Amino acid sequence: MPAPATGLHLIADLADCHGLCDVALIEAALREAADAAHVHVLSVHLHPFGPEQGVTGVALLAESHISIHSWPEEGLAAIDIFVCGPLADAEAALSVIVARLGGAIRYRQAIPRLGARTGAALAP
Amino acid sequence: MPAPATGLHLIADLADCHGLCDVALIEAALREAADAAHVHVLSVHLHPFGPEQGVTGVALLAESHISIHSWPEEGLAAIDIFVCGPLADAEAALSVIVARLGGAIRYRQAIPRLGARTGAALAP
Repeated sequence: MPAPATGLHLIADLADCHGLCDVALIEAALREAADAAHVHVLSVHLHPFGPEQGVTGVALLAESHISIHSWPEEGLAAIDIFVCGPLADAEAALSVIVARLGGAIRYRQAIPRLGARTGAALAP
Repeated sequence: MPAPATGLHLIADLADCHGLCDVALIEAALREAADAAHVHVLSVHLHPFGPEQGVTGVALLAESHISIHSWPEEGLAAIDIFVCGPLADAEAALSVIVARLGGAIRYRQAIPRLGARTGAALAP
């Protein structure tokens, strides 16, 4: 079953990261982030652009997705944590990713999606 | 090669959509949207939750990603179009998806990501 149509989308751009070419590290970070957020990974898809280059990828979740796009030459990573359902903890997921990549948050925004904007779908 | 670390992230929540269980339609919409945006699809991953239920998925791009999460029982779809590089046209991609799903935009936000916020990476 998909999660309810009420979501929190946490956007973060990170600087001064390491490991941004490391597919195994990035996959582990995405999976650990999902665990921390109490969400369920359906599949992980990562595309490395080549040696010393960035990675683009996503963890598809029963509760939406966590994505990453990395630019190792600049130490940058763009992170999206879009989670649905009242139990999902996007902040916990972001903390895991920041810790794994050793980065600093240069920009962040939390955006209510769908029913979360009106509160209608948040009622018990 | 990945696109430059300067991006536009266009978020849109759609209502009154049709075809939200239709994996083939959704894949076609994502691929057509990428074409309209002048970006390059690396792979498409779609997870149908079951008959008459929603779909969660992503088109991974050389220029970041387009994602969709759908709730057919409510006619809702959450769309993200995150594209990097000065030539990418996120608005064109969104127009394609709205047309394909027959929906109306209930919420939208365009967020500069990474270098696009400072303009630094937009210099010729």
